[in-house]
Amino acid sequence: MSKITIVDVAKKCGVGVSTVSRVINGHPDVSAKTREKIMAVIRETGFVPNDSARNLKRTDAKCIGVLIKGVTNPFFSPVIDIIEQEIDKHKYALVLRHVEDDQEEADVALELEMEKRLRGIIFLGGGSEQSRIKLTELKIPAVFSTIGASSLEEDGRNAFSTVSVDDRLEARHMTQYLMNLGHRNIAIITEAMGRRSVGHLRLEGYMDAYLERGMTLDEDLIFYVDQYMEHFSVENGYRTMQRMLSAGKEFSAVFCVTDMLAVGAIRAIADAGLKVPEDISVCGFDGMEIGRYINPRLTTIRQPLDQISRETVKLLFDIIESRSSHRHITFPAELCVGESTSRYAK
Amino acid sequence: MSKITIVDVAKKCGVGVSTVSRVINGHPDVSAKTREKIMAVIRETGFVPNDSARNLKRTDAKCIGVLIKGVTNPFFSPVIDIIEQEIDKHKYALVLRHVEDDQEEADVALELEMEKRLRGIIFLGGGSEQSRIKLTELKIPAVFSTIGASSLEEDGRNAFSTVSVDDRLEARHMTQYLMNLGHRNIAIITEAMGRRSVGHLRLEGYMDAYLERGMTLDEDLIFYVDQYMEHFSVENGYRTMQRMLSAGKEFSAVFCVTDMLAVGAIRAIADAGLKVPEDISVCGFDGMEIGRYINPRLTTIRQPLDQISRETVKLLFDIIESRSSHRHITFPAELCVGESTSRYAK
Repeated sequence: MSKITIVDVAKKCGVGVSTVSRVINGHPDVSAKTREKIMAVIRETGFVPNDSARNLKRTDAKCIGVLIKGVTNPFFSPVIDIIEQEIDKHKYALVLRHVEDDQEEADVALELEMEKRLRGIIFLGGGSEQSRIKLTELKIPAVFSTIGASSLEEDGRNAFSTVSVDDRLEARHMTQYLMNLGHRNIAIITEAMGRRSVGHLRLEGYMDAYLERGMTLDEDLIFYVDQYMEHFSVENGYRTMQRMLSAGKEFSAVFCVTDMLAVGAIRAIADAGLKVPEDISVCGFDGMEIGRYINPRLTTIRQPLDQISRETVKLLFDIIESRSSHRHITFPAELCVGESTSRYAK
Repeated sequence: MSKITIVDVAKKCGVGVSTVSRVINGHPDVSAKTREKIMAVIRETGFVPNDSARNLKRTDAKCIGVLIKGVTNPFFSPVIDIIEQEIDKHKYALVLRHVEDDQEEADVALELEMEKRLRGIIFLGGGSEQSRIKLTELKIPAVFSTIGASSLEEDGRNAFSTVSVDDRLEARHMTQYLMNLGHRNIAIITEAMGRRSVGHLRLEGYMDAYLERGMTLDEDLIFYVDQYMEHFSVENGYRTMQRMLSAGKEFSAVFCVTDMLAVGAIRAIADAGLKVPEDISVCGFDGMEIGRYINPRLTTIRQPLDQISRETVKLLFDIIESRSSHRHITFPAELCVGESTSRYAK
């Protein structure tokens, strides 16, 4: 029996080829009766639609590896979406790997590099000092996205690219903003990681603001998340704030180094019978969509994730295709004032 | 020059091999002075650490494709994490592709199948009727995760596997819960997709509850999200609720078919000067972590994503390794009462 074509199906049904095509492609503008008739003939004849996508022959797609530090960190969801779309435009496939908080991204990257068709690696999060020596072993280009050059040792500057905001500078801006509202005892919730982690860079920015104003920083106002839970989860923000409230230390404002931590902290403050911002001002960092919808709306630093993500892929392919050497690109972030911070009034 | 070994580095530094190893692996229990000395020798000699991960030789990893319907849907973040970890245990790589709301997952799947080393496909979201004919063309096994068997035509039952909750049944439970609180005019926010979409199944469950109680359903209380925006985004929930409030139709409760829609709806109600749940009860569906932290805490149906994700990978490998034929597995979900719903009191 010769292969059944769309023309055969159309003839058998007494309809035009375009009607059969519309049914196959799920267009709604075909009557139920005609649709059922066509479906019956398709089943009966064993007709296989000839999908145009099949002609692309992407049998040996080259890959870009994407390594994400921190499991279930929703901050990276929109970043991965954009990166995947941009990689797809180059006809590359995206291979995804998560790196747990206690894993070295270098180990995972070197293992992933064994994948023969891998042409480049994008790191989302991470970038610890410890990985540095190992990462210079990578033979394919790597771009750190949302992680700045300052988080890599000098030696690494020509070995990798980075696309990010200036975490330290932006954290200083946020702390200055809280100081300008009259707050003096500003607590911070951050992670206890190496000095090149995002959490540490944002802590340094906070300390810069104190230094700049000649104000004494009470180190007891620096609180670290539980390192045995996911660092930047809502739950960790919640538990850390519970700990802070029971520690009995006075503070009128809290700078959470990520929005997710801030969402948890706000909930813990409410559960303790206190009000945000009347009793405690809370701000975050990242500019995640959810922050604009929670009650109260979150004051935060908005990272231009769209620009960062597109530039990450563009730069990686510029390096792969030898149009560029490694570069370090910094985008300015934006301080977005919500309803979770207010003037100090005690 | 012969290859520099870790023993050479240790000798040059006058320390033990284990100390060099600790520095390479970033352990903190080495003094700064010793650390700097070792780093200097490593740089000087060009020593390359021999990473154990490199011995795995995963040069030709087989792949599992994961197709996600709906860009930036954070509901899938924890699912992808678990799936990636489980796939990794089998020494397979995860290839990720997003399918936009207006794209056919079948087209993307068939294109992805051209990838020679792809051994199976997992669909997250989607599962439209329209894709059915095309999907029977897939030569590798496919498992729909978080999408139930009822969302596939009869013909597809032996062609694919599904692992999910019973969306229609659970949505009926939620609607019954609202009715038991005394609500009569219960609105619903859903998506206007084909009759096999998750949004439609949950709408059917809502209608089942009305039918079962012999109550008349006012079809004007069925509201559809803006289909030109991402369907299940917070923003779409916000905008749809704004539209509902200005439509002037009375309702005392709203069933949002996803938690993200509910978060947006709650914010829109607050911005209109109304209170949740005093003026309008709001509930969601999915059981996302964020729902337990927003104010008020969200009443929702919690899907057992951990079980669903693990079972998805287990079933897929059972089929790949011929230990099972296609199956349809349903897990019970849990109604979690938060603070966003209360007794009808008017």
